[in-house]
Amino acid sequence: MRTQVAVIGAGPAGLLLSFLLHRAGIDCVVLEARDRGYVRQRVRAGVCEQPTVELLTSLGLGERLAAEGMPHEGLSLRFDRADHRIALTELTGKAITVYGQQEIVKDLIDAHEARGYPISFEVSDVSLSDVDSERPKVTYVDSEGNAQVIECDAVAGCDGFHGICRPSISDKLTVYEREYPFAWLGVLARTPPSHHELIYTCHERGFALHSMRTPEITRLYLQVDPHDDVANWSDDRVWAELTARLEVDGGFTLREGPILDKGITPMRSFVAEPLRHGRLFLAGDAAHIVPPTGAKGMNLAIADVRVLARALEALLRGDESLAASYSDTCLRRVWRAEHFSWFMTTMLHTDPHADGFARQLQLSQLRYTTSSRAAATSLAENYVGLPFA
Amino acid sequence: MRTQVAVIGAGPAGLLLSFLLHRAGIDCVVLEARDRGYVRQRVRAGVCEQPTVELLTSLGLGERLAAEGMPHEGLSLRFDRADHRIALTELTGKAITVYGQQEIVKDLIDAHEARGYPISFEVSDVSLSDVDSERPKVTYVDSEGNAQVIECDAVAGCDGFHGICRPSISDKLTVYEREYPFAWLGVLARTPPSHHELIYTCHERGFALHSMRTPEITRLYLQVDPHDDVANWSDDRVWAELTARLEVDGGFTLREGPILDKGITPMRSFVAEPLRHGRLFLAGDAAHIVPPTGAKGMNLAIADVRVLARALEALLRGDESLAASYSDTCLRRVWRAEHFSWFMTTMLHTDPHADGFARQLQLSQLRYTTSSRAAATSLAENYVGLPFA
Repeated sequence: MRTQVAVIGAGPAGLLLSFLLHRAGIDCVVLEARDRGYVRQRVRAGVCEQPTVELLTSLGLGERLAAEGMPHEGLSLRFDRADHRIALTELTGKAITVYGQQEIVKDLIDAHEARGYPISFEVSDVSLSDVDSERPKVTYVDSEGNAQVIECDAVAGCDGFHGICRPSISDKLTVYEREYPFAWLGVLARTPPSHHELIYTCHERGFALHSMRTPEITRLYLQVDPHDDVANWSDDRVWAELTARLEVDGGFTLREGPILDKGITPMRSFVAEPLRHGRLFLAGDAAHIVPPTGAKGMNLAIADVRVLARALEALLRGDESLAASYSDTCLRRVWRAEHFSWFMTTMLHTDPHADGFARQLQLSQLRYTTSSRAAATSLAENYVGLPFA
Repeated sequence: MRTQVAVIGAGPAGLLLSFLLHRAGIDCVVLEARDRGYVRQRVRAGVCEQPTVELLTSLGLGERLAAEGMPHEGLSLRFDRADHRIALTELTGKAITVYGQQEIVKDLIDAHEARGYPISFEVSDVSLSDVDSERPKVTYVDSEGNAQVIECDAVAGCDGFHGICRPSISDKLTVYEREYPFAWLGVLARTPPSHHELIYTCHERGFALHSMRTPEITRLYLQVDPHDDVANWSDDRVWAELTARLEVDGGFTLREGPILDKGITPMRSFVAEPLRHGRLFLAGDAAHIVPPTGAKGMNLAIADVRVLARALEALLRGDESLAASYSDTCLRRVWRAEHFSWFMTTMLHTDPHADGFARQLQLSQLRYTTSSRAAATSLAENYVGLPFA
């Protein structure tokens, strides 16, 4: 098979890239290891930056997002048993939109199917070769069990942290990494949100986050030990712990409901540089991971492919310049997001290894961030999304 | 001897407190271990926050400061071989004033002598007792070798980090501490400054600071190993290292001159809480130390005694309330300054133990701080001095 760009992975990065390339008249194919139903349901991030919303809207992908997405003009940092609101929109003129990653994936799959853009689900044994050349190859086994070969001009590695693209050039990459001494236990509950905005809580028992997916579905997170087992967390224990961490003077009523999904996610910062080797371009989680506290992971993936689509368009016209600058262009935003995510994570979590000095610094940081307009604006402008480069 | 307040230490904290108390009609005595000449020449901090300048001016202590102090409306962060200016005044409406700590000490000693406020220099064997009671005692040996006892209503411990006041109640205190894996080699050189503003430099060879004392005297600092010996630093090596770290694209000419003073200062963060036990009140370096990168040490000492003077006035009228809140009131500002000083220190120094991830975060922080108006304003408002409580 011959195509111009082989896109590995049908997450938000791969699907949006494929959409952008097709729209520019470039032939491409998306390969995805999972089945169509799984990909459309996979629960991941839920906060869209304003630049993400604007991009999707400008591409005609924003109809359901506008109808069902929940715009938020602020969020709360909860500590010292009180809420301290960051007025995102008042401080920056921008807002975030709560809209699940899987909804964006559904919208993108629907857009592909409506236009006949190809996505091959349930492929296996994907492997890359000749990425150093101008004619890389992708071999894989399709969903019917047939061995396939794609010859292409470029490969986009959008296959996430556990994908095959990054490892295929690992000897060309410099890796930066940080593991955190905690993880998130996330639960999806069928109950209306207990507050109309997100609540990021720093409590001596550990971090907690009150979030939501829809007006009927609440998303809640608890900081847990990274070696903890979800089996240790009965529904009753989850609700009791959330209630304890979310307490405020004056009282806070947490709405409980049936728990639909429960899982533990490790917290990691990770960057592999550069994002390009030869004709292989990495984007999104395949190249970098942020801890979820800053809500940056999906937004960063979308920012990457926005730059990558332009770089590939130029490359296929014979202009190497944007491909050459792709990695550096993206890494500025990536490192900003890495720093912001580290900042939010360390400011809000209880570090079991922290000494008293570090704990007092953390409290001073929280009090300052919520009392200085400049500091609150700094948090807000990162959270709503800095402008694209 | 009977007095109302015994002030231990004739640094900026002790002298300003004594001045404020006398001005309020309260009888007090300052005891100082060093001789008058030493105290007037002791080279320490050199940057006054705007609230410090305003306070000294409002007390009639600002005449020489206004004539000789050098107001600065900005400073440079130098990294990536370029200057990135923080426009302090444009961002905050405030400025800092370069005016050596020893000049403030001279002004305060002169003000004491002109008004006949007592300072006993060269005292030794100072010791406190009965600070739990309403009539504490201070015993010491005066400069003539005579044993003396002061009975008083309160003792102000303004005798610095190595003084005797804090250790006398160490079992009542909680200590928070951080040692940094570097120190500052400071030199005073007889040469006009090489730039009209301060330059905080983050270079792979280590931090460097270009500062000044007067239009003819430059103050320069180099990050060195905390176990380094000043004997290893010939004048030639100092200038060569400063030149290497201060290089920029386009060139920077460092003006050299005779080195008048050279010393290595460790970098430490330290807070002992609470700042009061019984009738003993700690202020300034006796209770807390910041690394010098934020230029906060002297300013914090002055902020402490401003609160302490009011608390002691009220206490001596029989109103305990401000004395009871003294520690908490000061500690908010202290921890803000501790956090800011830690922030500036970690952002600007080369940490020999940092991994690649930490170094990239540091670079992202520098780039963001100098490109976001909100982040630059946050740095600037801390640097020029947040309003007094």
